[in-house]
Amino acid sequence: MRVAPRPVGDIAQELGGDVVGSAQALVDHIAGIENAGAGALTFLSNRRYVPHLATTQATAVLVHPGIEPVPNGPTLIRVTDPYAAFARVLAWMYPRHRPSAGVHPRAVVADDAVVDGVFVDALAVVGAGAIIGAGSWIEPGVVVGAGARIGVDAHLMANAVVAPGCTLGDRVVLNPGAVVGGDGFGFAPTATGHEKIPQRGSATLADDVEVGSNSCIDRSALPGTTTTVGPGSKLDNLVQVGHGATLGRGVRMVAYSGVAGSSTLGDHVTLAAKAAVLGHRTIGDGVAVGAASVVHDAQPDGARVTGIPAINHRTWLRAATAFSELPNVLRALRDLRRRVKALEEARDHE
Amino acid sequence: MRVAPRPVGDIAQELGGDVVGSAQALVDHIAGIENAGAGALTFLSNRRYVPHLATTQATAVLVHPGIEPVPNGPTLIRVTDPYAAFARVLAWMYPRHRPSAGVHPRAVVADDAVVDGVFVDALAVVGAGAIIGAGSWIEPGVVVGAGARIGVDAHLMANAVVAPGCTLGDRVVLNPGAVVGGDGFGFAPTATGHEKIPQRGSATLADDVEVGSNSCIDRSALPGTTTTVGPGSKLDNLVQVGHGATLGRGVRMVAYSGVAGSSTLGDHVTLAAKAAVLGHRTIGDGVAVGAASVVHDAQPDGARVTGIPAINHRTWLRAATAFSELPNVLRALRDLRRRVKALEEARDHE
Amino acid sequence: MRVAPRPVGDIAQELGGDVVGSAQALVDHIAGIENAGAGALTFLSNRRYVPHLATTQATAVLVHPGIEPVPNGPTLIRVTDPYAAFARVLAWMYPRHRPSAGVHPRAVVADDAVVDGVFVDALAVVGAGAIIGAGSWIEPGVVVGAGARIGVDAHLMANAVVAPGCTLGDRVVLNPGAVVGGDGFGFAPTATGHEKIPQRGSATLADDVEVGSNSCIDRSALPGTTTTVGPGSKLDNLVQVGHGATLGRGVRMVAYSGVAGSSTLGDHVTLAAKAAVLGHRTIGDGVAVGAASVVHDAQPDGARVTGIPAINHRTWLRAATAFSELPNVLRALRDLRRRVKALEEARDHE
Repeated sequence: MRVAPRPVGDIAQELGGDVVGSAQALVDHIAGIENAGAGALTFLSNRRYVPHLATTQATAVLVHPGIEPVPNGPTLIRVTDPYAAFARVLAWMYPRHRPSAGVHPRAVVADDAVVDGVFVDALAVVGAGAIIGAGSWIEPGVVVGAGARIGVDAHLMANAVVAPGCTLGDRVVLNPGAVVGGDGFGFAPTATGHEKIPQRGSATLADDVEVGSNSCIDRSALPGTTTTVGPGSKLDNLVQVGHGATLGRGVRMVAYSGVAGSSTLGDHVTLAAKAAVLGHRTIGDGVAVGAASVVHDAQPDGARVTGIPAINHRTWLRAATAFSELPNVLRALRDLRRRVKALEEARDHE
Repeated sequence: MRVAPRPVGDIAQELGGDVVGSAQALVDHIAGIENAGAGALTFLSNRRYVPHLATTQATAVLVHPGIEPVPNGPTLIRVTDPYAAFARVLAWMYPRHRPSAGVHPRAVVADDAVVDGVFVDALAVVGAGAIIGAGSWIEPGVVVGAGARIGVDAHLMANAVVAPGCTLGDRVVLNPGAVVGGDGFGFAPTATGHEKIPQRGSATLADDVEVGSNSCIDRSALPGTTTTVGPGSKLDNLVQVGHGATLGRGVRMVAYSGVAGSSTLGDHVTLAAKAAVLGHRTIGDGVAVGAASVVHDAQPDGARVTGIPAINHRTWLRAATAFSELPNVLRALRDLRRRVKALEEARDHE
Repeated sequence: MRVAPRPVGDIAQELGGDVVGSAQALVDHIAGIENAGAGALTFLSNRRYVPHLATTQATAVLVHPGIEPVPNGPTLIRVTDPYAAFARVLAWMYPRHRPSAGVHPRAVVADDAVVDGVFVDALAVVGAGAIIGAGSWIEPGVVVGAGARIGVDAHLMANAVVAPGCTLGDRVVLNPGAVVGGDGFGFAPTATGHEKIPQRGSATLADDVEVGSNSCIDRSALPGTTTTVGPGSKLDNLVQVGHGATLGRGVRMVAYSGVAGSSTLGDHVTLAAKAAVLGHRTIGDGVAVGAASVVHDAQPDGARVTGIPAINHRTWLRAATAFSELPNVLRALRDLRRRVKALEEARDHE
C-alpha cells in the first residue's frame, strides 16, 4: 500500500534520528525487512537480523545508533529505539481515519448523555447519564451503559460493551466484543443452591488501556469498590480480569491469560498466553509468568515463574526438559534396585 | 455508597438472626471487614478472620452462631450462614433497578413474538415466534432468535445472543456477549475436506442458570435433542459447553473451563479455571476438577482430580511438588549408577 | 422431529449407496443409533458400535460397505463414508431455512455498499463500500466494516463482526460473536510505556472457512499484508488467531486453541482444545497438537506433539503416565542412596 512519497531526511528529522546515506531517497510504503522492495521503509531492531542489511531491497532502514551501513545498502536512519520509531512512522503514514464528531441518526443516545465532540456510529447505544469525552469514537453495535464515563479520544470498536456505571480513561481502546463490567462470579453455596452475591461495584480502566477482542473485565462485588486496570496496561484477546482485581501500570496480559477475583498485579507484570493467577493473590512489580502457567502463590517483585503450579522459571525449564526422561528414570531405578540387591546378597553371603 | 440508614435489629429480624450488642445501631452501607468504617455492615464467614473483629471499625458484622463479641467491638448478627445472609442484605440495600415493562421504540420485536410484561431495550431484536416471560429484561443489542423461549424474570445483558429455537428457564442471567445456541463443532473428514454435520438440535438452560460474559453454549447436532445446563448451574466468563453436553444441577464452571461435545457432568460438579473435560465422558456427581486440568477419563461420584491428564488430586499434588526435583533425580541416578558400577567391579575383582 | 416420510431406497439413490433390506421402508426422522426408534434413519461409522445393529429400533442405518445385515435388523444403506453421508441426509431432511434476499428496513446499509441478493436482517450494519456476495445471510446485530468483502452464500450469525477492510470467501460461516479483524497485540516497550504498533493490515478467510462463537482472528500489522485462514479450515468457539498468522487448508482448531502472531500452520493441521502455538513458528502439514499443549518449536510435516512444551506425543504419553510415580521415585532414590552408601562402607572396611 503506497502512500505519497517522502524523503528519508524528513522522516529522520521528525524522529530525531541521524541519516547515514541519501537523505533525499524517497519512501512511499512500509514493509518487513525480508520482503521490502524499492521505496520501502523498514526497521531492524533485533541485532540478529543485521545480515539482512546486505540483502534487503528496502530504500531505508530504521536502526540502532551503533549499526554501520553496508556498501550499496539502504539508507540508515539511526534512532534510539528503532521499533518504537517504526510504530510512530506507521501511524503517520497510515493514519486510522477518525470520523468527525457527530451522532449517526440511527444511533440511540439518551437525552441526558453527554457526547459532545464524539462520533457515535449507527446502532450504537449510549445510556442515560453516560458521559463520553471529545474525540472518542463509538463504533456500530457498541453499548455504553447508563452512568458510564469515558475519557477523551477513546475508541470503542464494534459490539464492545461498557456496562452501567463503569469508567474508561482517556485514549482507552476496546476491540470488538470486549466487555467491561459484566457481573463477577460470586455465589454463596447454600443448602438450596448457589446464592448469587450481588455484584454492585464497578470496573475502571485507566488512561491508555487497550483491551483485545472478546476480553472480559468484571465489575467488583461491593458498592463503592471497583475492579481496576492501571494506566497503559494492554490486554490481548479473550483475556479475563475477575471481580475486584487490581492491575498496576503497564501490565501486559497475552491471549487467554486471566486474573481471578481480588488479586493484585503490580506494575509492569506480564502474563504470557494462557497464564492464570488464582484469586486473592498479590503479584509484585515486574513479575513475568510463563505461558499456560497457574500461579498459586504470591510472588515478590521481579519473580519469573512458570508451570502448574508456577515455580521459578529456570527450575521449571530444567524440570520440563527432564520430564521426557521420566520413563527412563523408572527403568533405571528398577535396574539399580536389582543390582543393589545383588550386591547386598553378595555382601551378606560373604 | 451510603443508603438510607437502618437499625441493625431490623436487618437481623429479616434474616432470622440474633443480635449481640446494640440493635439500635444504624448501618447505611456495606463493606469488606478490613476496610469497613462507621455505619458499615460487613460479614465474617471464614473463622480465620475472627481476629479482625477486634480491629474492624464496622458497626455490625454478620457472623456464625458460635462467634463471641469483643469488648467495644461491633454489634454481631448471628446467622446460620453469614455469607449467604450478606448476599441477601447486599441485594436489599443495593437493588439492581429493573426497568418497567415495555418495548423501547427502537427495539425490533417480531409481530408474533410474545413479550408481555417484558422490558425490551433499544436495539434489541426478538425474532418471530419467540416467547419471553414476564419480568424479563432484555438489554440493548441482545438478539433473541426466532422461536426461542425464555422464562420469567430472566436478564439478558447487552449483546448477548439466544439463537433460534433455544430455551432459557426462569431467572436465567446471561452476561454481556454470552452466546446460547451457536453451531456445535461437528465435521466429517472426507477426501475433499471437512464436511459440516448440520447442527439441528437446540440448547436449553434450566431455571436459575447464570452464564458469564462471552461464554458459549452450543446447540446439539441432532434434531429433537438439546444441549442441557441443569437448574442453578453457574458458568463464569469465557466458558464453553460443547454440543450435546448435559450438565446437572448446581454445576460450577469457572472461567475458561470447558466441556466437550456429548459429555455429561453430574450434579454439583465444579470445574476450576481452565479445566477441560474431553468429549463423550461421564463425570459423576460432586466431582471437582482442578485448575488447568484435562479430564481424559470418566470419573466416579465425588472424585477430585487435577492434572493433564487429570489424576487423583492428592497424587497430583505430591507429584507436582516433586516435579521441580526432576533435574536432581537425573543427577542422583547418574551418581548412583556410577557408584553401583564401582561396587560391582570391586565385587567382581575379588 | 419428524419430517415427511421418504423411502429408504430414495435416500440410498441420492447418496449413491446400496440398500440391503427393504428399500420401501419409510424414514421420517434422524436419530443417534442408541435411542433411534421406528422411522429413524441413523448411521454406524465406528466399527466398535456394530453390536448396536442387533438392538437398534431404527428403520435404516447408513453403514460401511463391509457391514452385514442382522436377522430382523434394520435396513442397511451401504455407503463409502457413512458419517459424511449422514451429514448430507441431515442437511436434506432438516434444511436451515435461508431467508430470501432483501434488506430489513431496520438494517443500516451504506449507500455505496453492494448487497444484491443478500439478506440483511434487522439492526445489522454494512459499512461504506462493503461488498457482499449473493446468497449471503447477515443476521441481526452483525457489523460489516467499511470496505469489507464477503463472498457468496456466506452466513454471519448474530453479533458477529467483520472489521473494516477484511475479506471473507464464499460460504464462510461466522458463528455469533465471532470477530474478524480486531487489532493485533503489538506494542513496542519504551521508557514511557507500551507504544502501540498500528495494526494496518487485514484478515482474510478463504472459502468454506467456519469460525465458532466468540472466536477472534486479528488483522495483521503491516499495510498490504493479511492474516490468512486457508480454504476449508474450521475453527471452534473461543479460538484465537494472532496477527500475521497464516493457516493452510483444512486446518482444525478446537475450542480455546490459539496461534500467536506471525506463525504458520500447514495444511490439515489439528490443534486440540486449549493447544497453543507460540509466535513466529512454522508448523508443517498434517501436524497434530494434543490438548492443552504449548508448541515452542517449529514442527516438521506429520509431527504429533503434546505437552508443555510440546514433545513427541508418544514420549509425552509415557512421561505423563510416569508422572504420578514421581513421589515414589524420590523415595526409591533415597532408599537406594542409603543402601549404596552402606555397601560402600562395607567395601571400604574390608
